Amino acid sequence: MVESTLQVDYVKKYNRVKCEDLLKRKFFYVPSFEIYGGVAGLYDYGPLGSQLKSNVEQQWRQHFVLEEDMLEVTCSNLTLDEVLKTSGHVDKFADFMVKDTKTGTCHRADKLIEEHITKVLGKKKDMKQEEKLNLLKLQDDAGSMGPAQLDETIKQLGIKAPDTNNELSEAQPFNLMFETLIGPTGQLKGYLRPETAQGIFINFRRLLEFNNGRMPFAAAQIGLGYRNEIHPKQGLLRVREFTMAEIEHFVDPTNKQHHKFNRVKDMRLPLYSSDNQIQNTRVIIRDLSLGDAVAQQVINNETLAYFMARTYQFLMSVGIKDEAIRFRQHRPDEMAHYAQDCWDAEVETSYGWIEIAGHADRSCFDLTRHSARTKTELVAARYLKEPKPIKLVKHTVNSKEVGKVFKQDSKAIKEYIDEAPEERKQQLLAEMNENNQISIKVNDKDFVLTKDHVTFEVIDKILQEEKYVPSVIEPSFGIGRIVYCIFEHCFKQRAEDAQRTYFTFPPLIAPVKCSILPLMDKPDLNRFVQDIKSMLTRAGVSSKIDDSGQTIGKRYARTDECGIPFAITVDFDTLTEESVTLRDLHTMKQVRMKITDLPSNITQLSYGIKTWDEVLQQYPLFQSGAAAE
Amino acid sequence: MVESTLQVDYVKKYNRVKCEDLLKRKFFYVPSFEIYGGVAGLYDYGPLGSQLKSNVEQQWRQHFVLEEDMLEVTCSNLTLDEVLKTSGHVDKFADFMVKDTKTGTCHRADKLIEEHITKVLGKKKDMKQEEKLNLLKLQDDAGSMGPAQLDETIKQLGIKAPDTNNELSEAQPFNLMFETLIGPTGQLKGYLRPETAQGIFINFRRLLEFNNGRMPFAAAQIGLGYRNEIHPKQGLLRVREFTMAEIEHFVDPTNKQHHKFNRVKDMRLPLYSSDNQIQNTRVIIRDLSLGDAVAQQVINNETLAYFMARTYQFLMSVGIKDEAIRFRQHRPDEMAHYAQDCWDAEVETSYGWIEIAGHADRSCFDLTRHSARTKTELVAARYLKEPKPIKLVKHTVNSKEVGKVFKQDSKAIKEYIDEAPEERKQQLLAEMNENNQISIKVNDKDFVLTKDHVTFEVIDKILQEEKYVPSVIEPSFGIGRIVYCIFEHCFKQRAEDAQRTYFTFPPLIAPVKCSILPLMDKPDLNRFVQDIKSMLTRAGVSSKIDDSGQTIGKRYARTDECGIPFAITVDFDTLTEESVTLRDLHTMKQVRMKITDLPSNITQLSYGIKTWDEVLQQYPLFQSGAAAE
Repeated sequence: MVESTLQVDYVKKYNRVKCEDLLKRKFFYVPSFEIYGGVAGLYDYGPLGSQLKSNVEQQWRQHFVLEEDMLEVTCSNLTLDEVLKTSGHVDKFADFMVKDTKTGTCHRADKLIEEHITKVLGKKKDMKQEEKLNLLKLQDDAGSMGPAQLDETIKQLGIKAPDTNNELSEAQPFNLMFETLIGPTGQLKGYLRPETAQGIFINFRRLLEFNNGRMPFAAAQIGLGYRNEIHPKQGLLRVREFTMAEIEHFVDPTNKQHHKFNRVKDMRLPLYSSDNQIQNTRVIIRDLSLGDAVAQQVINNETLAYFMARTYQFLMSVGIKDEAIRFRQHRPDEMAHYAQDCWDAEVETSYGWIEIAGHADRSCFDLTRHSARTKTELVAARYLKEPKPIKLVKHTVNSKEVGKVFKQDSKAIKEYIDEAPEERKQQLLAEMNENNQISIKVNDKDFVLTKDHVTFEVIDKILQEEKYVPSVIEPSFGIGRIVYCIFEHCFKQRAEDAQRTYFTFPPLIAPVKCSILPLMDKPDLNRFVQDIKSMLTRAGVSSKIDDSGQTIGKRYARTDECGIPFAITVDFDTLTEESVTLRDLHTMKQVRMKITDLPSNITQLSYGIKTWDEVLQQYPLFQSGAAAE
Repeated sequence: MVESTLQVDYVKKYNRVKCEDLLKRKFFYVPSFEIYGGVAGLYDYGPLGSQLKSNVEQQWRQHFVLEEDMLEVTCSNLTLDEVLKTSGHVDKFADFMVKDTKTGTCHRADKLIEEHITKVLGKKKDMKQEEKLNLLKLQDDAGSMGPAQLDETIKQLGIKAPDTNNELSEAQPFNLMFETLIGPTGQLKGYLRPETAQGIFINFRRLLEFNNGRMPFAAAQIGLGYRNEIHPKQGLLRVREFTMAEIEHFVDPTNKQHHKFNRVKDMRLPLYSSDNQIQNTRVIIRDLSLGDAVAQQVINNETLAYFMARTYQFLMSVGIKDEAIRFRQHRPDEMAHYAQDCWDAEVETSYGWIEIAGHADRSCFDLTRHSARTKTELVAARYLKEPKPIKLVKHTVNSKEVGKVFKQDSKAIKEYIDEAPEERKQQLLAEMNENNQISIKVNDKDFVLTKDHVTFEVIDKILQEEKYVPSVIEPSFGIGRIVYCIFEHCFKQRAEDAQRTYFTFPPLIAPVKCSILPLMDKPDLNRFVQDIKSMLTRAGVSSKIDDSGQTIGKRYARTDECGIPFAITVDFDTLTEESVTLRDLHTMKQVRMKITDLPSNITQLSYGIKTWDEVLQQYPLFQSGAAAE
């Protein structure tokens, strides 16, 4: 079964034109600088989009930072070039671009290939299975091709420049970082960060200390990232400025078990393994428990598998359909040389499978590089089960004598000896024993020291712990992409009237929790509307009043369009009974309850503590309102 | 009384060295890229600082966005140069710098003057009152001086380059925006935004539509802003990357009343008026109600005054001392030409009075400029109390005839006439009546049209509403500066032991709400610790376990250093009674309560629903624990 080419049911039904129309009309998001003609890859979130995005971030914080007890940090976005040279981004954070040979328009080579194949597959319905599989494999591989392979594939498939049909140039690398100058001198170069991770690595020592030296631990960060895309398309899916949420879980490389793995070991995630991609069977494994996946080394280790499980739970909690999620393992040819294993969470949308989170075991690459570059020790310590007796060189500097002889150089000389690594001290000991003096070079000057200045001796010590450079397991999320997938997956059209479109966001992330509608625009009803609004605000529940005087049916349709899960209607019975109706967006059913019951019910519904079914059991169904629609 | 030179009590007692030591030791914040030597003006927030900052933002959102029903948006940071040309930033967003003539080091001219005067005032204690007042006035004025005046003042005061004592160059403007290139062509210039406001102005039309066309309304945004400072100093107070929270309140310029002004009209804010600055009396007005301040035109309008009151409440709610707040009005010479009135909220710190929020009436400047540049109508409409009968020119184009005669130009000709303003249509009507034809120029071509192509007639219409460009009242907050002031104002030393330093953050913004301490590191106690932790996490309350095995007194000191307002101790009575002690950071008093009572009590204490005094009345005081300290 060629599963990954099948679209899940909802994607087939999805009406992109109608959904995008609704998103724009309700100002969920729009191109930035719209009245200036916009800039590709930059978007502004309006009130509903902004609040929904913020709720997704809040849920991420609750699900990961709070529940997994992570250390959240907020690092500078503007990043010193030296840091990104060390991390490898200055040299390697690039995509390959090809130019339209006549107009000069730049395109991203791998995306041209992917899009071309999607188009071909859509047109030639009667294609042979083998040919189809070959094309799908090329499509999978495009992202990890080098320039020669890209050029060859473009030639082989006869791809021309989109729109113009002109010839394309050869593929060239283009660095995707935005560059700028810091300060007035023009000497200090910086970049907008391409990921939030580096800020965490640089602060590793302080984080470990904050954690009282205990391992393993995780730091997390939510913040902006930048990527100067060559030719952004596909709306929120390929943008130049985006919110990321990243976790760097530091772990002993000799022990990547996770203390909570037991809780997820029986979960079965949809796994699209590297082997199944290479063999081009395109089969998604659905019957392998995470426990077995780790035991059989399909997934490299418990910690990686644990976070994949937590990501799966998170994505479903914010409204992404489980049947449209898969975890795709990186093939060896697309994985960074230092990485141990890597699994992307991909979600099926009308644009195909989209990567929205990565889970990478980055080994000790980053800490090792930053440590070497800055000569700062970035290590943790593990207790030895059996303490190890070792021999160490101990030195004693005669500060008084050194000061007398070496004057202003004495401090630097003393520091040199104090900070000499063990190996160097062994050399110095041997030299002193042989020649009764040692020669050292400090600050480009030569000095000769005798036993009057410094002595060395070998002492016995019992080693209780040993140092190591931690490995890093990195779950990394693109918030904007997740938000886009939520829009697609929560978009609905009413069965009885396809023109009535709406969003069934989970109440937890819905931008506004409830709307308040006076049946008519009368002062005595409006007084209740204002009271209810204040009551909900105090409880921290967001609400939106619609007293526009439209029919109640039209106003229900309007609140549905905004994806507001609950609607309170203030009617004439409210005046005498102090009760209102509460309506559920999805079922359109209504109950009647006292005003004083509203804050607790809506709070509990919003945070998933109570379900609508439970409300239905507790309160009497209200009939006449439904008839009004 | 020269009040503004007096430091309020707490500032005199404040120990900056000890506070900064604690902030660094507990990793509230550190210089970014610390292991690379750092970059001036860029900082990373560690777990405690990041959480505190995020809580301040959340309180801002609750206090302003939710309670005032604002439309929150999230706009792109990277901004098209054309937008910032229009807003005036490309030309005018600059500071004046002077260079050390020998080393080339750049300094900000106004800050050199301010710092020099602070130093002189500190040294010469016996200075005459008049001389002192003159220096204070120069210090106040420095920020709004032009280059000539800066040069003159530097010469007059004999200011030399700091550290080197070299001569200084003449003052030159330096634009403070970070520049970058968007996309691979190198043609599209962009800047990191210097303020979040422009994103809101550009989206005005969509925001008004979202608000169903109703005025007044406010949009708000929390996000990063950038300012390429010439020579950043003073830690978090002068940085190159910072979080801003801005409100753009759109209002009819003929009616700047605020519907909730009544609620604040009796409040008395500390006002440092423009007049009192110009006359150099340096008196802070403390006995003028906001109602009277608006009536007497000390503050220009109700909306501005309303927001000043709300800011005052907000600052106190996050832990800034009311006696260290003043509202300083901009003098006419420092106010932008288009601004109507402007009041900064300033807070006294050990660095002097620091601006942490501005309240500006920007009039209709921004909307007018963007509208003119983009030819987009950025207006609202007001209903006329009395509908106005007017005469309008109506035109009718005979499309068929126009198409036949003008072929490919006909579309442009039709558009030209359709879009002609009323005035132009009157001209065309007159011309047609006189000559039986009209001459127009479209796309640089001349055309002659007769009555066969277009006709004009005067019709009567009743005007129900008229359009206007809204004024903007802008409260704008620097979150990082507020966070810094909170650190200073909440820093404490125990009366009985000055080495024991701690922070009394309001529980609402405390980075962690409570710590959980097992009296000893025993498995049966630790089981309770984990249960309590999960229970609190489910309730959305952050907590920090300290099971390090240190004495309970040391661990209390440690939790105090982090500013954690409450500490739960699990002891041997917990095993039998399922109760724990709950300790308050500030009073060090403890009560005993059931574990099941913890979540609701800590939630209510954290959100200010319950006070510690109320807890003391409800639960029995626990004595022996206090003795342990």
